Amino acid sequence: MNILVINCGSSSLKYQVIDSETELVKAKGLCERIGIDGHFSYKPEGGIKEEADAPMPSHTEAVQMVLDALTNAKTGVLKSLDEIDAIGHRVVHGGEKFTGSVLITDEVIRGIEEESDLAPLHNPANIIGINACRQLMPNVPMVAVFDTAFHQSMPKKAYTYALPYEYYEKYKVRRYGFHGTSHSFVSRHGAELAHLDYGNSKIIVCHLGNGASVTAVKNGESIDTSMGLTPLEGLVMGTRTGDIDASVVEYLCKKEGLTVEEVLNIFNKKSGLAGVSGVSSDFRDLFSASEEGDERAGLALDMFFYRTAKYIGAYAAAMNGVDLICFTAGLGENSGPARARILDYLTFMGVKVDQEANMAASGVDARISADDSRVMVYAVPTNEELAIARETIALL
Amino acid sequence: MNILVINCGSSSLKYQVIDSETELVKAKGLCERIGIDGHFSYKPEGGIKEEADAPMPSHTEAVQMVLDALTNAKTGVLKSLDEIDAIGHRVVHGGEKFTGSVLITDEVIRGIEEESDLAPLHNPANIIGINACRQLMPNVPMVAVFDTAFHQSMPKKAYTYALPYEYYEKYKVRRYGFHGTSHSFVSRHGAELAHLDYGNSKIIVCHLGNGASVTAVKNGESIDTSMGLTPLEGLVMGTRTGDIDASVVEYLCKKEGLTVEEVLNIFNKKSGLAGVSGVSSDFRDLFSASEEGDERAGLALDMFFYRTAKYIGAYAAAMNGVDLICFTAGLGENSGPARARILDYLTFMGVKVDQEANMAASGVDARISADDSRVMVYAVPTNEELAIARETIALL
Repeated sequence: MNILVINCGSSSLKYQVIDSETELVKAKGLCERIGIDGHFSYKPEGGIKEEADAPMPSHTEAVQMVLDALTNAKTGVLKSLDEIDAIGHRVVHGGEKFTGSVLITDEVIRGIEEESDLAPLHNPANIIGINACRQLMPNVPMVAVFDTAFHQSMPKKAYTYALPYEYYEKYKVRRYGFHGTSHSFVSRHGAELAHLDYGNSKIIVCHLGNGASVTAVKNGESIDTSMGLTPLEGLVMGTRTGDIDASVVEYLCKKEGLTVEEVLNIFNKKSGLAGVSGVSSDFRDLFSASEEGDERAGLALDMFFYRTAKYIGAYAAAMNGVDLICFTAGLGENSGPARARILDYLTFMGVKVDQEANMAASGVDARISADDSRVMVYAVPTNEELAIARETIALL
Repeated sequence: MNILVINCGSSSLKYQVIDSETELVKAKGLCERIGIDGHFSYKPEGGIKEEADAPMPSHTEAVQMVLDALTNAKTGVLKSLDEIDAIGHRVVHGGEKFTGSVLITDEVIRGIEEESDLAPLHNPANIIGINACRQLMPNVPMVAVFDTAFHQSMPKKAYTYALPYEYYEKYKVRRYGFHGTSHSFVSRHGAELAHLDYGNSKIIVCHLGNGASVTAVKNGESIDTSMGLTPLEGLVMGTRTGDIDASVVEYLCKKEGLTVEEVLNIFNKKSGLAGVSGVSSDFRDLFSASEEGDERAGLALDMFFYRTAKYIGAYAAAMNGVDLICFTAGLGENSGPARARILDYLTFMGVKVDQEANMAASGVDARISADDSRVMVYAVPTNEELAIARETIALL
C-alpha cells in the first residue's frame, strides 16, 4: 500500500509517499512559504529533485500541488490518486485526550482543535493540512499521529508540576513531552538491535537535533521526558533555553521592560546554543568556531553535552538503572565527537565506549559501546515518517 | 571567644551566641514581627525559654533587646557586651562579588547593597541587621557569611543559562545557588565521618527542608547546585515549584489574567508540596494525610522523592561518580522513611541501605549505608550557625 505522510506547519508542508510493503520512500518533498509566495520541491525515488517557486495562497493549493506532482505523467510515482491508500498526518499536541494514533473523523478534528490552546502555533496548522487533504481526497482514510501520545504513559509523579493543583484540573497544565514518534520508533528499534526484550527493558533515548529531548522508556513505555507543557523545557536546544529558573522571566521583564510574551519569545527563538554562542544554532558551526578558539561557542557545546549527560543520569535514577542508551536525530545519529563528549560523563554507571565504532557511526544503526560495557549504547537513526506510515497502516 | 550569630529577615532576627572553644550554644532566640508589633524569645543554655510580646519598631530595637537579654543580670549568659568578641551575619546574596566570607567594612556593605537586585527581599534586611549591630557595637568586628559564596566555584557550564549571553554580561543572570553554608558544612563534615579525603572526593549533599537544594561537591568545591538565580529553581519545596517549563509563566498569565509578578508569587508561595497536596507544606502532615489515603498528599511526596533521586542521578553524572551522599536539614537529617524512598531509586549505582541504621538515624551523625554499599550514605545534621561562627573566627 502507498501511504502519504504529511507534516504540516503554519507555512510549510513536508510530505513522503511510503510503500508499506518495502517501507521505502517512493517520493518526497516540501512546500514552503505557504500563504506568502510559495516554493515547491519534489523528488521521486532514484530521480532528480525538482524545485520551483509556485503561488500557494493556502494549504489546499499546496496539497493539490503535491498530488499533481505525485501523479504527473513524466515524473510521478503514482498512476492516479486512487493509488494513495491512506494518509498519515503528524499532529503536534494530543493533550490528554489522545494516547495513541487515531483514524481521523469529525470528532477527532474537533478534539485536535480543543487542544490548540496547548500548541497554538502547531495544532491549527495540522488541522488545515488535514482539511485540505479531506477536501481533495474525501474517501481516503486518514490517521492522526500525535507527537505527545507516546508520553501519555508517564506516571503522575513525572508529569505533574508542583503548582497549585487547580491549574492541572482547570487548564491541564502538566508535562506532555514531544518527539514521541521518534522516541517510540528509536527505543523499539534500539531494543531489537540490542536484542533486548522491549517489554522488559530500561532504555534512554537522546533525540539530539535542533530541537532536543531525552526520554526514559521503561518496559516499552515512556515514563519521563525532558520537554514539558511545551517544547521549551529540558535540554539546551538550537534557540531554546531548556531548563531555567522561572524567576528569570520576571527578572528580564523588569530589567529589559519586556512583556512576558516577549521574554518567552526570546527564550524560544533567541536563546539556546545560538544565544550563548552568538555564533549559530548549528552544531557544525559551533564545532568549527570552538576549534578556532571561540570561547562562547565552546561554552555552548560544553553546556549542551553536560546537560544531556545530567539527564541521562537523572533518568537512570528514574528507572533505577539503564540497559541501553540510544542516540538519534541530526547530532545524535551522526556525530561521534558529540556522543563521546556526553558518554565521557557516564563511565561511573558502567558505560564503556568503543571509540572506533563511535567515531565511525554516522546515519546508520550502529553499536557504539564496547563489548564489556555494562550499559549498551547505540546510534539509531530516527525515521518519523516511516513511524507515521506504520501507525497509519496499523489502523486501517 | 563568644560569637554572636545573626540571621536577619525582613521582619525577623534569629540569633545565637556560640562559644568558639567548645562550639556550644550559650544562648539563642528569635525576634519576630519587627516593624509590625514585635515578639521576642530568649533561651540560655540549660535554662528556660523566655517569651514576650515587645514593641520593635525597627531592627535596632530588636538588636538592643537581644543585647539586653544576653547581659541581663539574672538570666544573661554574658557579663557585659565586651564579652561579644565578634558578630557573624548571614547574608543571602553575594552575587559574583563575594566568593567567600569577609570582614564587614563600609565597602562590603556597599557591595551587599549592589547585589540587592538579585535578592530584593533578603539583602536589604541583612544590611539593616548589620547596621543595627554597628550602631550598638561600633567596635566589634563583624563578618558577612554569604549563602551563595560556596557555589562560586561552579564551572561556567554549570552556572550559565542558555540565554542570549548579553543578559549574563549586563545583568549577571546565571545560576548562583543558595544554602551554601549548609552544603559546605555538611559536605566537609560528611567527608570526615566517611574518612574521605575532602580534597579528593565526590559528594552529593541533599539539604531537604522547607527550602530544599542538592549540591554536587567535587574535591571540596561546589560544582553544581539545584537552586538558580533565585531559590525557586530545583527540587519541589514546601511552597515553591522548583523546576518547571518557563512557558507555564506565560500560559498562566493568559489563562488567569495575572501579571508576571503575581504568577511568580504563586510559584514561590502557593506551589510546591502545599500546592500539589492542598494539605500542607509540612512533611509530617503529608505523611499522615497520605497514610490516611489522601492521594494528592501521596502525589506530592512521590514527586518530592522522585525529583530528589533524579538530581542525585544527574549529579553523579556531573561528577562521573559519587563516593558519598549526605542528607541534611529538617527532613534529610530526621526522616528515615523519606531517605529510604529516595535511596530506593539508586541501587543501580551501588547504593545499599542499612535499613535499620537508616530508620534509627534522626538528628545525629549516622552512617545509613550498608558496609558493602559502593556509595556511602550518611545523615549529617546541618548547623549553619556554627558554620557562620567558624567562618567568623577564621577572619579575625
